Amino acid sequence: MLRIKTILAAAFLSLAAAAQPAGVQTLKSPDGMLELQFSLREDGTPVYSLCRGGAPVVLPSRLGYELRGCLLRSDFASKTVRTYGEPVSMHDGFSLENVSFDGADEVWTPVWGEESQIRNCYNEMSVDLRRENGARMTVRFRLYDDGLGFRYEFPQDNSLTYFVVKEELTEFAMAGDHKAFWIPGDYDTEEYPYNETRLSGIRPANEKLGAENASQTTFSTGGVQTSIQMKTDDGLYINIHEAGVQDYPIASLDFDDATRTFRTWLTPDAEGWKGHLQAPCHSPWRTVMVVDDARKVLASRLILNLNEPCALEDVSWIHPNKYMGVWWEMITGKSAWSYTDDFPSVQLGVSDYSAAKPHGRHGANNENVRRYIDFAAANGFDAILVEGWNEGWEDWFGCQKDYVFDFVTPYPDFDIEALNAYAHSKGIRIIMHHETSSSVRNYERHMEAAYDLMNRYGYDAVKSGYVGDIIPYGQFHYGQEMVNHYLYAVQEAARHHIMVNAHEAARPSGLCRTWPNLVGNESAMGTEFRGGIPPGHTTILPFTRLQGGPMDYTPGIFEQDMSKLNRDNDDRCRFTICNQLGLYVTFYSPLQMAADLPEHYEEFPDAFQFIKDVAVDWEESRYLLAEPGDYVVTARKPKLSTLNAAARSVAGLPDGKKDYLSGAARFVYALGEDATADDLASARARDTWYVGGVTDEQERTVSFPLDFLQKGVKYEATIYADAPDADYETNPQAYVITRQTVTDKTVMKLRMARGGGFAVSIREIVKK
Amino acid sequence: MLRIKTILAAAFLSLAAAAQPAGVQTLKSPDGMLELQFSLREDGTPVYSLCRGGAPVVLPSRLGYELRGCLLRSDFASKTVRTYGEPVSMHDGFSLENVSFDGADEVWTPVWGEESQIRNCYNEMSVDLRRENGARMTVRFRLYDDGLGFRYEFPQDNSLTYFVVKEELTEFAMAGDHKAFWIPGDYDTEEYPYNETRLSGIRPANEKLGAENASQTTFSTGGVQTSIQMKTDDGLYINIHEAGVQDYPIASLDFDDATRTFRTWLTPDAEGWKGHLQAPCHSPWRTVMVVDDARKVLASRLILNLNEPCALEDVSWIHPNKYMGVWWEMITGKSAWSYTDDFPSVQLGVSDYSAAKPHGRHGANNENVRRYIDFAAANGFDAILVEGWNEGWEDWFGCQKDYVFDFVTPYPDFDIEALNAYAHSKGIRIIMHHETSSSVRNYERHMEAAYDLMNRYGYDAVKSGYVGDIIPYGQFHYGQEMVNHYLYAVQEAARHHIMVNAHEAARPSGLCRTWPNLVGNESAMGTEFRGGIPPGHTTILPFTRLQGGPMDYTPGIFEQDMSKLNRDNDDRCRFTICNQLGLYVTFYSPLQMAADLPEHYEEFPDAFQFIKDVAVDWEESRYLLAEPGDYVVTARKPKLSTLNAAARSVAGLPDGKKDYLSGAARFVYALGEDATADDLASARARDTWYVGGVTDEQERTVSFPLDFLQKGVKYEATIYADAPDADYETNPQAYVITRQTVTDKTVMKLRMARGGGFAVSIREIVKK
Repeated sequence: MLRIKTILAAAFLSLAAAAQPAGVQTLKSPDGMLELQFSLREDGTPVYSLCRGGAPVVLPSRLGYELRGCLLRSDFASKTVRTYGEPVSMHDGFSLENVSFDGADEVWTPVWGEESQIRNCYNEMSVDLRRENGARMTVRFRLYDDGLGFRYEFPQDNSLTYFVVKEELTEFAMAGDHKAFWIPGDYDTEEYPYNETRLSGIRPANEKLGAENASQTTFSTGGVQTSIQMKTDDGLYINIHEAGVQDYPIASLDFDDATRTFRTWLTPDAEGWKGHLQAPCHSPWRTVMVVDDARKVLASRLILNLNEPCALEDVSWIHPNKYMGVWWEMITGKSAWSYTDDFPSVQLGVSDYSAAKPHGRHGANNENVRRYIDFAAANGFDAILVEGWNEGWEDWFGCQKDYVFDFVTPYPDFDIEALNAYAHSKGIRIIMHHETSSSVRNYERHMEAAYDLMNRYGYDAVKSGYVGDIIPYGQFHYGQEMVNHYLYAVQEAARHHIMVNAHEAARPSGLCRTWPNLVGNESAMGTEFRGGIPPGHTTILPFTRLQGGPMDYTPGIFEQDMSKLNRDNDDRCRFTICNQLGLYVTFYSPLQMAADLPEHYEEFPDAFQFIKDVAVDWEESRYLLAEPGDYVVTARKPKLSTLNAAARSVAGLPDGKKDYLSGAARFVYALGEDATADDLASARARDTWYVGGVTDEQERTVSFPLDFLQKGVKYEATIYADAPDADYETNPQAYVITRQTVTDKTVMKLRMARGGGFAVSIREIVKK
Repeated sequence: MLRIKTILAAAFLSLAAAAQPAGVQTLKSPDGMLELQFSLREDGTPVYSLCRGGAPVVLPSRLGYELRGCLLRSDFASKTVRTYGEPVSMHDGFSLENVSFDGADEVWTPVWGEESQIRNCYNEMSVDLRRENGARMTVRFRLYDDGLGFRYEFPQDNSLTYFVVKEELTEFAMAGDHKAFWIPGDYDTEEYPYNETRLSGIRPANEKLGAENASQTTFSTGGVQTSIQMKTDDGLYINIHEAGVQDYPIASLDFDDATRTFRTWLTPDAEGWKGHLQAPCHSPWRTVMVVDDARKVLASRLILNLNEPCALEDVSWIHPNKYMGVWWEMITGKSAWSYTDDFPSVQLGVSDYSAAKPHGRHGANNENVRRYIDFAAANGFDAILVEGWNEGWEDWFGCQKDYVFDFVTPYPDFDIEALNAYAHSKGIRIIMHHETSSSVRNYERHMEAAYDLMNRYGYDAVKSGYVGDIIPYGQFHYGQEMVNHYLYAVQEAARHHIMVNAHEAARPSGLCRTWPNLVGNESAMGTEFRGGIPPGHTTILPFTRLQGGPMDYTPGIFEQDMSKLNRDNDDRCRFTICNQLGLYVTFYSPLQMAADLPEHYEEFPDAFQFIKDVAVDWEESRYLLAEPGDYVVTARKPKLSTLNAAARSVAGLPDGKKDYLSGAARFVYALGEDATADDLASARARDTWYVGGVTDEQERTVSFPLDFLQKGVKYEATIYADAPDADYETNPQAYVITRQTVTDKTVMKLRMARGGGFAVSIREIVKK
């Protein structure tokens, strides 16, 4: 990995620091546009501020903690019940001990991602603070061209060794009543539609919501979750989030209208404490992204860059997945996760399923699973998710059962061995499902056996779920103990070479850089909410939720009318088919689902072709047009290394990965239907791009140049566009597919219907 | 197993029931002395009462629960955060659905115990109750000659399926202001000295204690723990406890002075709830023992009989243990659990112990452990406990560290492989130590690896510890989640053929009958409290703590002056050497320690001989004299089967158990020093008895007949008695050892000094 100490910058900075009024420490971004200032107030309160081109982005805002000390060395014989120590202020009374500067300009290679290489270029300032009682704390600032990251560090040799967080006091004082895209603060779920208001509109909107929704675990009517995307009246895009949250509670923000200040609000534990820490340790990174173009938000890698490098030596077993699932039919009520109605309540190991009468609506039965395997294999997918395969679904939810699942016992009509063998014979992997029902102790007790079972039958990916209230009782989904658990599950999975897609877990903060087997999360309102999702939703997520890592959004719904699947379900999805196609490009994920039923794809084979073709791992990404809440248009070029591996597997050449790289169709597209055996053998993929666009409830026509194409090269573009009369409410399934020859000079002009979108496949034309 | 349905009793009972005033249901004990009455008040509140010989023991007392219902079948899509349902009364509005009678008279064989066979003889009455809303509950009463057990049962097919316990309302209304021996109610510890007061003295005593001891987790100044031993002015001994507590919180009692009524007080969880239950299920047994002689309390098997039979098929790996330990020297401060002073705080896997400077006081070092192995082997012990062997002791306590131990990484000066090999070569097992520091999630995460390590190196027993506050935060030692954990640890240990001795765990309720690999618990103030233990303490524990199962009390301290071990420790134990010898007989445990240091036993080899000789598993036990708080004198006959196995191992004959049955000395005693090879081969043990006595701070002379000896047989008695001038304060180490010939006609008269006691070995004299 290339790492250049930016001598010049450092020298410049020390000069800059010297030039400042006494006590004010300054750090500038590599391009000089952003300026961070740190100082201590008279009472020793640490304060920072951030400007862009001289204009304030974050007004002077306090830093620090209110803590409680713990007992130090033990007195065993007394065996006294531990009591938390006296209050320890770590937010005032500080003196400046030392300031040091550093920086880096390096390039790193993600295992998977939106591009094959990522530049990590920042200037750094570390401020060492000390209180009279000897307690020390360092605040480390890293300033990038597109934003700020800073964290608190507690050194090893410190009078403050073991402590409890009463409150983290980090503040973000905003310079105006910005427009904001946000969801309410909640300790247990992020599955909300977005609010688009001024900052002054947060409290009224939350008050209204609180009145409507009693089930919220809210803490304040000023509460919002991160990442929160803001836009200033001067056209600046400000995004507040966090990076690298490990063994520390997830932070929400509490907005104070009087001062227009966000204060960090950590998720408490069952006792109300907000973290138990032991030095040496540090907080997650607090981040403030600030750019002058919405597209730069999508292009920013601030969160990933602030996370630690990959912790895994061997990543050969981690691979992108395009999958289908025995899932949407349960979501829509067409079939069920459960197997029988016989049991008033289930006792695992006691309730005898072999003698139970099936209710006949069980989705994960041998015949149905085979049907999905056949269809997925025939259409070049890598895997299928099968939910409801294991005993316990009859009373899994809402009863707070401790022993709710054992994660290893299939229902009588799910032949785990035969189905996996059948899937593998067709180059398909079955994706395991571990719904924990939030009985977390029970999951950890069975985790090793559950992962062993997966290894035995050849599963290499698991979707885990945390629906319902947490057991141990009194904990929240986003508290420190659960944040610790989610990562524990990912680390244990890595030991077993298993990829994890965790639903209802804490929203990601870039940990997938360090543990790339964390290939997906939910942590937002996904397609399962159907009609509950407003058209603009998918134009906001790339600015917020996706900043922390990929989302298993499950796009690809072609049948918007739920009553076609379940006559008792009158729900209607609010998007067009082309909108769904566009999402495969506008949403990045190495794990991408085609969520609808095989029979619905069979109704629209020409539109389905795009889902078959589109890649899920990328060499390069271009963000062509973007405005949060309105539209997103993105272009991406498939990653060549993945193509080559796939091409070899298509060519039937020896390849260890062949078993899971059957997802051939998308590579065949890049190779061309007229590819010869030689082409396959040499895996010479044609230059290929995919472009996707989505809009909100507004119809709009967009145009964008294809200047990312190679000069002087002709390409064929296949365009999947909403039909002129398409409309998400009245005519969602109308689309037109056209072909045209394009070059880097072409400016493409496309119309998107209300709730619509488009998709384009662009492939180099090769003269034979 | 013999099981006689007591037809007669049943017939008699139905008659009795018929003879009662309408609505009153009556059950009598097999001997007819105890009578239980059940009825419903006008408002449908269930009530029971208990009489003995017509005199009231428990006045009419209410039964039932205040519950909260849960959501039933799930509505997945909504993913609503679970809210507890409406209040559900299960304490009034009941009507009587059915009453049925049953009974048993059977004999069962414990794996280990105070006798080789236990009779389980009771009459049973089941009362099925139903509320208008359809919620059903059965109260099952079992009446023995020595007491009552009853429990609540919730049937499988019930309108009440999943529910939360707000309060269990079971009451015990006492008929007088009895004398009581009790410790304060506490959610986290039972390690208190006993109070001896009238019932009316409970509150004043608790108020005084609360003022002195802020670290208590108390819930009420009326709070006491079970088992509580009472004595009425009419000489009845009443003992309230519970049996078979599984996946249910431990119950304390709250005393109401106005009505002289104890109400059940369950330990809450982090949310304040007192249990999460799913039908079919039942509560633990609530027990009221009532007998007319203190010795019958010690002879009672009420608690064991109410527990389920042994759940293990193969128990061949479970065996008694007489052991020593690298432990007392840490307790007294002579040496340390920790290894170094180098680390401000320990990070397992990061802190480099191999490079750390030893502080030189580490007890569990190779040389010291070898010294204990040599001494234990030379004196016929089975095992030695070694604490402080693994990394993490530098900051293990009071810091609420999650990752505090990994249970598999030894300190640099503890060679786990070599030491175990050395121990095994001398017929000694090392007892593993798992101090969890109450970081329970961490323990469960490492449990499998920890037990695997034990199997690899040949450990077959573990002492586990739960010192400090529980993690997950907000839980208590005696809550449902922890009660579930303690049993989980025992069950997982059984899979690995490991015996468990759990300290600071919930006080036992007879589960050792079902899981006999639970060979010990602490759950009371043991010898480690040294001078904190008043002389009367050991005369009370057999009536209270030991009712639930064996205690690892760690007797055998010969050196009462702690300053001899650690000049900074001026503590003095308050007992004589003979008192310590007496405990090996008055306290039953299959796991019995000689807790003092080898050098102290070497000072008193003739007194130490009794500890070497005395058995730890029994054919028969006789309770000769007893008065709680004053004195206990017990006689026991070693179990012949154990003797034979040992004799074979002494004789060097093939025996799978030889490796751990090296504890030969005590068997050699039973065989006689003059035993021939033939004697050994035939394992013909002589008839042997051991008698032990302990007193409180009062000097007293006791006399008892040896009428339990075989008629017409001559025995040699070796008597270890306090010297005439012995006294726990002024002269605790003075004793006299005498020998005399005795028969079944002999009446033995022995003096016990203040804080003293005695021990007697009695062996058949065989003429050659």
